[in-house]
Amino acid sequence: MQANLREHIEKIISLTDDEFAFVQSHFITKQFSRHEFLITSGQPVKHTYFVISGLIKLIHTDDNAKEHIVAFAMEDWWESDFQAFYKGTKATMSLQCLEDTTVLCLTLDGYNSLCSGLNKMEYFFLKKANAGHIAAQQRILSFLTSNARERYEMLLKRYPSLFQRVPKTQLASYLGVSRETLSRLST
Amino acid sequence: MQANLREHIEKIISLTDDEFAFVQSHFITKQFSRHEFLITSGQPVKHTYFVISGLIKLIHTDDNAKEHIVAFAMEDWWESDFQAFYKGTKATMSLQCLEDTTVLCLTLDGYNSLCSGLNKMEYFFLKKANAGHIAAQQRILSFLTSNARERYEMLLKRYPSLFQRVPKTQLASYLGVSRETLSRLST
Repeated sequence: MQANLREHIEKIISLTDDEFAFVQSHFITKQFSRHEFLITSGQPVKHTYFVISGLIKLIHTDDNAKEHIVAFAMEDWWESDFQAFYKGTKATMSLQCLEDTTVLCLTLDGYNSLCSGLNKMEYFFLKKANAGHIAAQQRILSFLTSNARERYEMLLKRYPSLFQRVPKTQLASYLGVSRETLSRLST
Repeated sequence: MQANLREHIEKIISLTDDEFAFVQSHFITKQFSRHEFLITSGQPVKHTYFVISGLIKLIHTDDNAKEHIVAFAMEDWWESDFQAFYKGTKATMSLQCLEDTTVLCLTLDGYNSLCSGLNKMEYFFLKKANAGHIAAQQRILSFLTSNARERYEMLLKRYPSLFQRVPKTQLASYLGVSRETLSRLST
């Protein structure tokens, strides 16, 4: 499977060929190998990423060097340390490949130029930001209201392909449960 | 303390008097009493709300009739069941007053008309949506990485006024801990 930027954008707005050429001129393509870092905690965040193929994880490492997975992103998803990206501060999270991954990279200048140069793109990003906010609010709700089994089952139902592609230790970290708990849940 | 819509918007964009009159024409003011509901789970969500004065809570009630607090909102904050508001679906959460509260109400038609009629407002809402997404992501991180005491201390540091205004049972629900745990933390 390979994501297509134009199809992705045209789910929300329609673009002429010239407009898409303008959009595309703001992105560069980069390839990363499995285990490689797109963003490293403590470093500046130059890009927000659109995943063409592959799988990445957004992680936070706590004071005890324990890794927590904040989000996964695969084909057709946007990911970054958004706080650091928009505010120009240093990353508090890292973004690392779980598979060989191809992404389209957009700088903050590019993001602003897209929004001001093509008003439809501002609308597109507004829709994506609202969707991101809603998804995050649903995840907060799942921490408040659901136990480990329920969170596991919701994830399985919503993103079945993650269970083929992500090691169990990583799924356990995303769900906020131990590897042992996850093993009990998945049998 | 009373929030001022124009000052709030002008933190991000500047408006002429005519432009602000256009913005203001999209809102209606409503007053609610303590305990009254702005949004009721299962009902349509007609508005997103900007809080002028007072304090509201966004809650989800689980299958065991237990209430979970997803968010508080006070002066200068926007709140709604955003999923239901943007998608036109029925509320899965309720929004209830903890104090007598005055809000400005904006319909989805009003939101869209503001964005298309005054491009700066689309930019304003994009900034607010990105900030909302970032705040939600930080809260997810706090569930993954912090224990009850740490979450309590972060909340106290960030929103000290909540501790004067919100009953402890409500704070416990927001933090995802029991009333007894919160009592231990706050002594």
